[in-house]
Amino acid sequence: MMKLDELGEFGFINTLAPAFEHLAAEGMTGIGDDCAILPMNDHEDLLVTTDLLIEDVHFLREAISPLQLGHKALAVSLSDIAGMGGSPIASFMSIAIPLELDVAYLDEVMDGYRTLSEEYQLPLLGGDTTKSMKAIAINVCVLGKCHKDKVRLRSMALPGDVICVTGCLGDSAGGLQLLLDEIPLNNEHKGLLEKHHQPEPRVKEALFLSSFEGVHAMMDISDGIASDLSHILNASGVSAKVCLEDIPLSDELKSISQKNKWDALGLALGGGEDYELLFTVQKDKLTAVQQEFEERFETPLYPIGGIEEGATEIRWMKESREVRMSNKGFTHFESPDVL
Amino acid sequence: MMKLDELGEFGFINTLAPAFEHLAAEGMTGIGDDCAILPMNDHEDLLVTTDLLIEDVHFLREAISPLQLGHKALAVSLSDIAGMGGSPIASFMSIAIPLELDVAYLDEVMDGYRTLSEEYQLPLLGGDTTKSMKAIAINVCVLGKCHKDKVRLRSMALPGDVICVTGCLGDSAGGLQLLLDEIPLNNEHKGLLEKHHQPEPRVKEALFLSSFEGVHAMMDISDGIASDLSHILNASGVSAKVCLEDIPLSDELKSISQKNKWDALGLALGGGEDYELLFTVQKDKLTAVQQEFEERFETPLYPIGGIEEGATEIRWMKESREVRMSNKGFTHFESPDVL
Repeated sequence: MMKLDELGEFGFINTLAPAFEHLAAEGMTGIGDDCAILPMNDHEDLLVTTDLLIEDVHFLREAISPLQLGHKALAVSLSDIAGMGGSPIASFMSIAIPLELDVAYLDEVMDGYRTLSEEYQLPLLGGDTTKSMKAIAINVCVLGKCHKDKVRLRSMALPGDVICVTGCLGDSAGGLQLLLDEIPLNNEHKGLLEKHHQPEPRVKEALFLSSFEGVHAMMDISDGIASDLSHILNASGVSAKVCLEDIPLSDELKSISQKNKWDALGLALGGGEDYELLFTVQKDKLTAVQQEFEERFETPLYPIGGIEEGATEIRWMKESREVRMSNKGFTHFESPDVL
Repeated sequence: MMKLDELGEFGFINTLAPAFEHLAAEGMTGIGDDCAILPMNDHEDLLVTTDLLIEDVHFLREAISPLQLGHKALAVSLSDIAGMGGSPIASFMSIAIPLELDVAYLDEVMDGYRTLSEEYQLPLLGGDTTKSMKAIAINVCVLGKCHKDKVRLRSMALPGDVICVTGCLGDSAGGLQLLLDEIPLNNEHKGLLEKHHQPEPRVKEALFLSSFEGVHAMMDISDGIASDLSHILNASGVSAKVCLEDIPLSDELKSISQKNKWDALGLALGGGEDYELLFTVQKDKLTAVQQEFEERFETPLYPIGGIEEGATEIRWMKESREVRMSNKGFTHFESPDVL
């Protein structure tokens, strides 16, 4: 009999979607973008996203602080709202709690959750609390809204667009690798671990970017850019060329990768949970968007390649020559979201 | 240090709510009713509810069929939408799956989920799939909508109202008791078990009831009427008198309770998960509502008592005399939602 690990996450979600398509009302879009879209009123759409974190699958209780856990549980869903160019309006949290857990631990989880909520004036409007036999499970659902003409979909990339990301990639995967390899931690590792445990969703950046008509497709980077960019290509029916030298890597990741003989680029491309934005922008609008973005956020945008016509594949370029990167090149890194 | 089981579910949710209240925008209502309410457009509000089911806490894999599990995971949230007088518009499912689970099992879970979804033309618009180390966890979030002047809150009960329920109480608790007592199951037990594993949410009934102006407070019965009615009393600032002889008990529950020396009334009052509706109706409108309801649904409404002025307490009546029912009277039954 087929087991779940043979089918994989995308397999299971994809099998589900068609069976429910006939039930969707006009204007509703379900599985296939960072968020579902529902008509809300004449000028706004409602965005909905939900993420489930399970102890020992997505986090280790002894590695992440409760403050960080509360932050991250909300951040991953906020990042999905950002990926569509939306503003979060309310959150809902379901939590399953092992009975031996101290209330003080829970209070800290909620402190982390609240601090991030306050940054976005985001009320927690409901949820469910239950006991669990063993593992902590946290499901967060975030609702957002977006002006109908500002929603950014994966299907909006056009040939000629420049592909950009909003920050360094691979730091979160590097942080996870430190934990998986059980490397004795010191101060030097703090940055990567924090990126892994306390990612900052790019909500404000996404809202700013979606105010530019020249910004086309957008999504957040949760599974690694090799996988995430493929989603844009599939949805838009285009191909892409990515320049490996242009993938932004932090000095920290480069130095720690060198010491531990990791493939920093592999972590950047195949590792997930960066929660930066991946978007495409019309070539003649790039400079203006870059300048205004850098003025506003004091951090640059990173162009990493371009969208082209043709079959939905990524061509990886190194020193202007195409290089082959088999899927195996990435699979040595086991993503926490592998299922 | 304080552990979670000392604090209890309501304690934890109640501690959270005030810390987020200042973040809610105008027109938003959070924790405290069956659903959160958010303004959606000029004439409708958005309703949101979320429920988390954990294996070995809320269900036993060997007792519930996968079809029933899929049905129940959705039914409990639909029942919350019903409790407010809303119509469900979309659902979202997060599921954590132990890797050893057969895909055939999951397919059946989704068949149960889809069959109930089809009954309400309800699309599944998203979710999250992840692996779990041991237990199945399913979080369902349902969005609904409701005309602004049709939303029914727990705070709407008025002195003089008659308290009604839409069906027999305690069957689900009886079904659970059969499992907890490990009673050898036979055909006679089928009805109670089905009520426990495959409850029917009263969405259509609630929409019908909320079309009557005379129907005031409403909610679904998920924790047992003793607890649920208290929520209405607290929210409305009123008291209630309930006639124990009028609590509707099924013949099945009465007969099985007698055989097993259970307290059928205790199960009906303190046991949860009936998912019938509890509502209050203006006295002079009762007969009309009863008649029209029975014509439409071919099942009666059951008046069980009345709302009165005064401190928020329930007075239990038997043969027109008040009887004392201490909390202990109910606590012999351990609810699966005890946390």
